[in-house]
Amino acid sequence: MQVRRLPLFLIAFLTLAPVMARAASAQTAPTPPAEGGKAEIVLRRSDAADPAASARWAIAIHGGAGVIEKTMPEPEKREYVQSLEAALKIGRDVLAAGGTSLDAVEKVVRFLEDDPRFNAGKGAVFTHDGTHELDAAIMDGRDLSCGSVAGLKTVRNPVSLARLVMERSEHVFFVGDGAERFADQMKVERVDQKYFFTQRRHDQWQEALQKERQGSGDASPDRKRGTVGAAALDVHGNLAAATSTGGMTNKRFGRLGDVPIIGAGTYANNRTAAISATGWGEKFIRHTVAHDISALMEYGGLTLQQAADRVIHGKLDKGDGGIVAVARDGSIALVFNSEGMFRGAADAGGRFEVRIWE
Amino acid sequence: MQVRRLPLFLIAFLTLAPVMARAASAQTAPTPPAEGGKAEIVLRRSDAADPAASARWAIAIHGGAGVIEKTMPEPEKREYVQSLEAALKIGRDVLAAGGTSLDAVEKVVRFLEDDPRFNAGKGAVFTHDGTHELDAAIMDGRDLSCGSVAGLKTVRNPVSLARLVMERSEHVFFVGDGAERFADQMKVERVDQKYFFTQRRHDQWQEALQKERQGSGDASPDRKRGTVGAAALDVHGNLAAATSTGGMTNKRFGRLGDVPIIGAGTYANNRTAAISATGWGEKFIRHTVAHDISALMEYGGLTLQQAADRVIHGKLDKGDGGIVAVARDGSIALVFNSEGMFRGAADAGGRFEVRIWE
Repeated sequence: MQVRRLPLFLIAFLTLAPVMARAASAQTAPTPPAEGGKAEIVLRRSDAADPAASARWAIAIHGGAGVIEKTMPEPEKREYVQSLEAALKIGRDVLAAGGTSLDAVEKVVRFLEDDPRFNAGKGAVFTHDGTHELDAAIMDGRDLSCGSVAGLKTVRNPVSLARLVMERSEHVFFVGDGAERFADQMKVERVDQKYFFTQRRHDQWQEALQKERQGSGDASPDRKRGTVGAAALDVHGNLAAATSTGGMTNKRFGRLGDVPIIGAGTYANNRTAAISATGWGEKFIRHTVAHDISALMEYGGLTLQQAADRVIHGKLDKGDGGIVAVARDGSIALVFNSEGMFRGAADAGGRFEVRIWE
Repeated sequence: MQVRRLPLFLIAFLTLAPVMARAASAQTAPTPPAEGGKAEIVLRRSDAADPAASARWAIAIHGGAGVIEKTMPEPEKREYVQSLEAALKIGRDVLAAGGTSLDAVEKVVRFLEDDPRFNAGKGAVFTHDGTHELDAAIMDGRDLSCGSVAGLKTVRNPVSLARLVMERSEHVFFVGDGAERFADQMKVERVDQKYFFTQRRHDQWQEALQKERQGSGDASPDRKRGTVGAAALDVHGNLAAATSTGGMTNKRFGRLGDVPIIGAGTYANNRTAAISATGWGEKFIRHTVAHDISALMEYGGLTLQQAADRVIHGKLDKGDGGIVAVARDGSIALVFNSEGMFRGAADAGGRFEVRIWE
């Protein structure tokens, strides 16, 4: 079967387009002045992406998307905002001090895992059987190395075990009992299943079970959309992303969602962007959401914002969820098609903001 | 943070380029005459891809890639070739009779799962603990629906359970005991672990254990690269892909490879191609190989062959493995960077061939 040939001018343009797009982007993005602090003592990695980006950093975080009621009581709203601000500060401090994007996203996600408000780590939702099963992933944009874990039952901070999979194993993905045995070897902090208990998640589970018995289907339209995550660019020009979740309320059958699927819920590539997703996992897997955004940038010449808009608003359905992302030029995208998304963004230019709805 | 703007002419071109590329491709691809048989009694799906493609079909299959010794005895070589030919005939017969690409790839993969020569189903490799754990995935290019299963222990044909996940569940991915419980509900054929036994895989496992005890590292450079799979285009213009594997000899820790990861080892999209990969799973996950090929076609305007060459030869390392794929225009790509790949290709134009090395 012969390979179809494209006209020559088309080949020339398709080859040049991404280069031209990147050049255009670089022209409109002046290099900010170097930041002080510890940046200069960090050894420059030979695989750093872009010398011009050296003093720029940026971070975007999320605590899940879905039907977040605007009638939420003020004190509760304030608690969410304060928690997201605390998480964002952790990431900002790592990056402003010249730390790595990997450290920033891991620390932010650990903090959100420990916070009982979000569906990851402490505060994870209940499975159908009344247990907690946790998934997480992390990816390093320098060389596409990555680590995923799924179905964890006793690991306090799944994101840190995912990082150990990436850095200390020849594999990239461990599931269930095997992942627990890897945790044994790595000596990460272990907890009893009771540690993950929260009354709120327990009540949601009971409600889901009851509705199921009554045959009224999905107990909560929101039960599929809880996740935490972060994406960051460091002053060395390296991108990283991490995501963690307690999965879906009342889930069965060892169901896996998009979080630990590299390219779906989590992706980082120094050529394009770092992306962490939150939403209806099945849809994000089918649409390979995170890698699709990266590919639209790399091959289609779109900016991060354009690429994220195209995928979240053009390919997914309303209510499915969203992403937070940081591009190699330091631009940030926070895009969702659900009613709300717990999110925050900060960068070297002084931006520092947390939002839930608009 | 402001969105960088591209020059207008660039936006115009980037928007038009894929359209122009497709138009160019269509011009050079004459529609073959309609085939007889049962094609006319199959109801036309409203979401069929391309009316012009209606009587064209194509299929590509593989039985794994890696270090396949050219010194293989003639009788053994003949057995492999005969088995691949039999598999290819199954797919050809489904497609030539107007059947669906989903049926074709499922039936081909079932046949290869049942064949003890290949590392999938009967003949699957041994885990470190002496068990067999099977993974599979299938994807429908019409609407990106997909199903994956991993860590199966008693399901004779994992690919068929993956299809049931896709068609009968609200989820896309089940792992371990949960996947077994889903199998209970679906009433698929179950077997004892002994069913998967073959002396050859047992010996490979023993050899791996022994080398491990001697501290000589990887027992076999080939232990990571066994897989079977198929990609097909049917006369209705729909693409589908399926992959199945017994995983990695002596694997531990519930390790997951690329096979069940949609976008890595398996992908199908009516806008581009259907792709099934075989190789070092970890590398295929990091590079989101199957979706990357699709994205290079859709956003970069490359042909299937160009896109597959770019990813397999330009991004992966020599020896990592390869892919078989069929594009929406019926073109076939069989690309690998390993010493050999068990593979076959057939199409409506009369092509029917099976190869191991060149």
